[in-house]
Amino acid sequence: MSVKIAIAGFGKLGAGVLNAVRSSDVLEPLCIVTRRDPCSVSAPDCIPVISFNDVLSLKGKVDVIILCFGSQGDLPYLSPMLAENFNIVDSFDDHAKIPEHFDRVNEAAYESGHTAIISAGWDPGIFSLARAAYRAFMPKGEYLTIWGPGVSQGHSNALRNIPGVADAKQYTVPISSAARDFISGKHFSDPAHECHRRECYVVAKKGFDRAKIEKRIKEMPDYFEGYDTSVTFVSKEELDARHNGFPHAGRVIGRGRTADGSLQTADLALSLESNPAFTGSVLVAYARAAVKIYNEGRAGCFTPLDIPVAYFSELSPNEQRKKFL
Amino acid sequence: MSVKIAIAGFGKLGAGVLNAVRSSDVLEPLCIVTRRDPCSVSAPDCIPVISFNDVLSLKGKVDVIILCFGSQGDLPYLSPMLAENFNIVDSFDDHAKIPEHFDRVNEAAYESGHTAIISAGWDPGIFSLARAAYRAFMPKGEYLTIWGPGVSQGHSNALRNIPGVADAKQYTVPISSAARDFISGKHFSDPAHECHRRECYVVAKKGFDRAKIEKRIKEMPDYFEGYDTSVTFVSKEELDARHNGFPHAGRVIGRGRTADGSLQTADLALSLESNPAFTGSVLVAYARAAVKIYNEGRAGCFTPLDIPVAYFSELSPNEQRKKFL
Repeated sequence: MSVKIAIAGFGKLGAGVLNAVRSSDVLEPLCIVTRRDPCSVSAPDCIPVISFNDVLSLKGKVDVIILCFGSQGDLPYLSPMLAENFNIVDSFDDHAKIPEHFDRVNEAAYESGHTAIISAGWDPGIFSLARAAYRAFMPKGEYLTIWGPGVSQGHSNALRNIPGVADAKQYTVPISSAARDFISGKHFSDPAHECHRRECYVVAKKGFDRAKIEKRIKEMPDYFEGYDTSVTFVSKEELDARHNGFPHAGRVIGRGRTADGSLQTADLALSLESNPAFTGSVLVAYARAAVKIYNEGRAGCFTPLDIPVAYFSELSPNEQRKKFL
Repeated sequence: MSVKIAIAGFGKLGAGVLNAVRSSDVLEPLCIVTRRDPCSVSAPDCIPVISFNDVLSLKGKVDVIILCFGSQGDLPYLSPMLAENFNIVDSFDDHAKIPEHFDRVNEAAYESGHTAIISAGWDPGIFSLARAAYRAFMPKGEYLTIWGPGVSQGHSNALRNIPGVADAKQYTVPISSAARDFISGKHFSDPAHECHRRECYVVAKKGFDRAKIEKRIKEMPDYFEGYDTSVTFVSKEELDARHNGFPHAGRVIGRGRTADGSLQTADLALSLESNPAFTGSVLVAYARAAVKIYNEGRAGCFTPLDIPVAYFSELSPNEQRKKFL
C-alpha cells in the first residue's frame, strides 16, 4: 500500500521533503503544488507540478499534503485552508503562536474529518518531546534549549532588510560555557541572550557606510540588541562560496534532582549539515503518522506531543519491539 | 482526582518509585506489596505494607501497580499474573525476551480488560524512543547505544557468584574514542565489546587465590570474556565506602546522510547519579500514562513506543502546547 504525498511549496524545505519521500519504499511523491508559475518549477523524475489554484483537484487522490511554506505569512492561513479538504502536516515554528495556530487548524480539520499535524520538525518537534519528557522525569528540575552553531533564516532575512545590505547570512553560535554552566547548576533568566552570540556575514552595497550598517545591525531590537554580535563584511563571491550551506545544531539539556537528592541530567543534541534536509525527513515521518491517525478515524489537529514514535515507522509493531526496545 | 499507586517490590527501584510518587501532587502511594514478611519492611510516612499473598485485596482500590522486581526470575510470571486483575507498569529489561514478555502480558491484560505498560525505564524505554526516531529520520543511517560509566547490577551479581568472592561491584565504562569514531563514520560490528570496558572491584574471601579469581572473572563467557576487563581487589570497608552508589549513564547516537548527502547526527545522553531513582521517575510517568490509556478504554499491553509524551503529564493539552512546543 503506497502512501501518496503532495508537497506544497518547493523551496529548500520542499526539496528536503521530496528527497525524503523518494528515499522511502512505501511513499510516493504524487505532485508538487506551487504558488509560482508551475512551468518555472523544475522537479526531478518528471514529478508533476501543479498550481496552488488547482489544489482541490487532488481531493481523493492524495493521502497527505506536506506544507513547506513560511510560518510568518503563509502557514497561519494556508494550513487551516488545506485542512478543510486534506490531511496535512506543517512545520509551523512561531512558538508563541502555536496555541492559536492549533485552534484554527483543529477546527478546520475536525469539521472536515481530516487529520492535521502541526509544528513537526526539530524545534518545535523533537526538542518539544525532550522538554516534555524531561519535565515528566525530573519534575523539580529545569531544562535549557541552546541553538546553533547554525544558520538562522529569520536573522539572515532581518539583515537583508537593512538599507545598504545586498546579501547576508547570520550564524547563531552557542556561548561555549553555557551548557557546562547549566549542568553545574546555573540558572539563566534570559537563555536566548545569555547562551548565544550572533555572527553576521554581510555584503554591503557600494556607497553605503559600513559603520552605520554595523551600528544598525547591533541595535536592532529583538534580533541583535543585547546579544554579543559580530559583523564581518565580505564580498558577494565570498558569501556565496563560503556561506552557502544551511547547517544547524542545537541541544536540549535537562537537569534535576530526584527526591533522594541525586542529580540527573539528560542531553539531546542534534548536529545537522543541512537543516532543511533533516527537517524534511522529520516532516515525512509525521506524514506517515498522519495517515495512520486518519485511518484510525481520528480527525482534528495533533502535535508531536500527541504522537507515539511507533507511528513513524513502516515496520510492524512486533518488528519495532524487536528492533528498538 | 488522585491516582492511587501500589508499589510491588521494595528494593532500590521500589524506593525510587515511592519517592517519585510522593513528589507528585496528583499521585497517592496506596501501599507497598512485598513478598517478604510485611513487618520486616519499613515504609516511610506510615504507608501500609501488605503481603503479595493479599494483592487481590487491592482490586477496585488501586489505579495501577508498578512492579519493581527483577527481569530474570520475577517479572516474566508476575507481570502477566498481575495484569489479570490490575493495570500494571513494569521495567522488564531483558531486551531479547521483550517480544515474548509482551505477548504474555498482552494476553492477560487484554482478556481482563486492563492496561499494561512493559519495558518502561531508560533502556529499554527512553533510549528505545531515540532509536526508533533516529531510524525514522535517518532511514539510511546507523545508531549506536553506549552504556556507562555506571554500575551494572547484572555484572556485579555475576562477580558475587564466583567462589571466593565475598562482595563486588562492576562498572561498565565506555571506551573514550567510541562515540567520536562512530560519529566520524566507523561501523562497529560488535558494539558491546568494541565500545565498553569493565572495571571490577572485588572483595576476596580469606584463603582464596586472587589470581584464580581474576582469571575466572576475565574468562567468564558473555559477561567478561572478550572485554578489556580490570580487576581490583579491595577491602569490604573500601567497597562499602567508595562504591556504595548506583550511578549510571548512557547515550544513543544516530548518524545518517539524508538523500542530499548531508551528514546528520543526533545524540541523546543521560548521566544519572542514581539509576534506581531516575528509573523510578520514568516508571511513575508511565503509570500516569497507563491510567489515561485505561480510561480511554484501551486494554492490552503497550510499550514506550506506543505512548505519546503528552500522556506523561498532569498538564492540560493546551498548557503542554504552550510550555513544551
